[in-house]
Amino acid sequence: MDTHSSRIQLREQRDGDVTIKVLFCGICHTDLHVMKNEWGNAMYPLVPGHEVVGTVTDVGSGVTKFKVGDTVGVGYFVDSCRACESCKAGQESYCPDLVQASNGVGFDGATTQGGFSDVLIVSQHYVVRVSDCLPPDGAAPLLCAGVTVYSPMVEYGLNAPGKHLGVVGLGGLGHLAVKFGKAFGMKINVISTSPEKREEAIDRLGADAFLVSRDAGEMKAAAGTMDGVIDMVSAGHPVAPLLELLKPRGQMVVVGIPSRPLEVPALVIVAGGKRVAGSGGGGVAECQAMLDFAGEHGIVADVEVVRMDYVNTAIERLERNDVRYRFVADVAGSLGVIAA
Amino acid sequence: MDTHSSRIQLREQRDGDVTIKVLFCGICHTDLHVMKNEWGNAMYPLVPGHEVVGTVTDVGSGVTKFKVGDTVGVGYFVDSCRACESCKAGQESYCPDLVQASNGVGFDGATTQGGFSDVLIVSQHYVVRVSDCLPPDGAAPLLCAGVTVYSPMVEYGLNAPGKHLGVVGLGGLGHLAVKFGKAFGMKINVISTSPEKREEAIDRLGADAFLVSRDAGEMKAAAGTMDGVIDMVSAGHPVAPLLELLKPRGQMVVVGIPSRPLEVPALVIVAGGKRVAGSGGGGVAECQAMLDFAGEHGIVADVEVVRMDYVNTAIERLERNDVRYRFVADVAGSLGVIAA
Repeated sequence: MDTHSSRIQLREQRDGDVTIKVLFCGICHTDLHVMKNEWGNAMYPLVPGHEVVGTVTDVGSGVTKFKVGDTVGVGYFVDSCRACESCKAGQESYCPDLVQASNGVGFDGATTQGGFSDVLIVSQHYVVRVSDCLPPDGAAPLLCAGVTVYSPMVEYGLNAPGKHLGVVGLGGLGHLAVKFGKAFGMKINVISTSPEKREEAIDRLGADAFLVSRDAGEMKAAAGTMDGVIDMVSAGHPVAPLLELLKPRGQMVVVGIPSRPLEVPALVIVAGGKRVAGSGGGGVAECQAMLDFAGEHGIVADVEVVRMDYVNTAIERLERNDVRYRFVADVAGSLGVIAA
Repeated sequence: MDTHSSRIQLREQRDGDVTIKVLFCGICHTDLHVMKNEWGNAMYPLVPGHEVVGTVTDVGSGVTKFKVGDTVGVGYFVDSCRACESCKAGQESYCPDLVQASNGVGFDGATTQGGFSDVLIVSQHYVVRVSDCLPPDGAAPLLCAGVTVYSPMVEYGLNAPGKHLGVVGLGGLGHLAVKFGKAFGMKINVISTSPEKREEAIDRLGADAFLVSRDAGEMKAAAGTMDGVIDMVSAGHPVAPLLELLKPRGQMVVVGIPSRPLEVPALVIVAGGKRVAGSGGGGVAECQAMLDFAGEHGIVADVEVVRMDYVNTAIERLERNDVRYRFVADVAGSLGVIAA
């Protein structure tokens, strides 16, 4: 990203729209992929950002959910067809015509521009309320990373007190899975290739146990003990040892997307009645439920807040996984401070 | 199997036991694997057979579920620990101490002997009632093949009228999945590598549609249309095209066990919220529910009934998949007819 200036024209506020002053916007790996056009679908000029917390500054005439002054959030989609089975079931994230918050195409044909912007205009149906109990910078990553881990935990019953959950990969998603899991009252076991993360996982994040995935003895000792495993890892990795950790009829949830197929041994899942499910986020109502739960339990991401003039450096550090655990851009705080 | 004669001593009937005169016993692929010691676990001399229908001839003093003269069935297990989470949940088939009906070891230390025998003695808790409305020869394969397909269909909601189910592989399991699916009121789509099975699937078994899995055009036209897919195929095969058939959040159930791992593309299951579950049969109560349902709807397997002196030939034909769709041994009818 060059630092030259350009201005983006947003649409006019329509009847059902909410106009939002962006306060903070998280930086997600997806932003990195799209900005660099690694998936070949970038539509330049593009404004990244889909983990937004802001303040309502104006509402259209038909808006009933929000009023000026409310603290709200916007996640990774800002519209959907509202008619398909997924939309009707409140599972908008699986709508085939989903409109991404950034680098998407709205039903009016315009390219959507994301949260690295002073202002967003979004239909009220795709805006959620953010508790004023939560610091808005730490809350921002909940809008994507938070719902990504919360949604399958609730859907697959991996939110029940006393259940034993394995969290594979301790990064932006994983550290939130630990926090939600502990708030649900579960026994949380972090599984990582990096032994040096043990102290962090247990002492600071409150996990109950830690397994080094490359330690066959540790893994074997934990075989058959877990109700669920949630796998955040995007690099290729063997899943068979993770399936061995599950009890009979245990549930593995995959949210990371390695480019090579997962190799699932049929004998292990058939003999144990085990299950593997992919999960791609949650609907608007689930996102709201997640934020309400986070508000009650004081759950936010561990963030490093940066000004907009540091974003390019943050992106470079994100590529090296050099962040604990999520960068958040202080969008409002950067205005007027940095020469445009 | 040589044809030389040998006699097996069964245990004495105990308080909770039922003594059963075996009428018919299905021949399952598992029998073939075990008899030939292909899994390296055969305990000779062994009596195969775990798809038994017979008549109660005696009951122990504590038996309340059955009386002399009842038509009953015995499936692939005859005991379990009765204390683990799976047993307590009525999911005995996932008990780690499951006692197989044949080639297993009971809690008394004795090797279990299966249904190719004039008499079986089994604890009443592992015996199920078979409707007298069903022909006992066609009912025999329900005790293993039937519950293997019925159990996951019910568990994953693939038993609702109007839902669209793909049945992959039209053999002993597949033809029963078609029959149960139609009885549930579903739209059934048989998926096979063999175009010549189309007529059989649609005209004789009543499937609604047929897809040739190697025909990319046919498969593409059906993409995203199915609520579920149940995969019976034991030979290695690509599962990615089957996952493409599912709607968002669709469920694939695997009951076949290819020796090479299933290759599951993470992007497909994450973006679509899709699920892959293994299923290894059902508990005793599920087996009873399946038999009751089969009795109400007149569901039996299509069988070729053979006498015991044809069993070795039947096994050879089974290896070549030369049967539509299941061999059943006429055990009682062979006694006295064949010189022992």
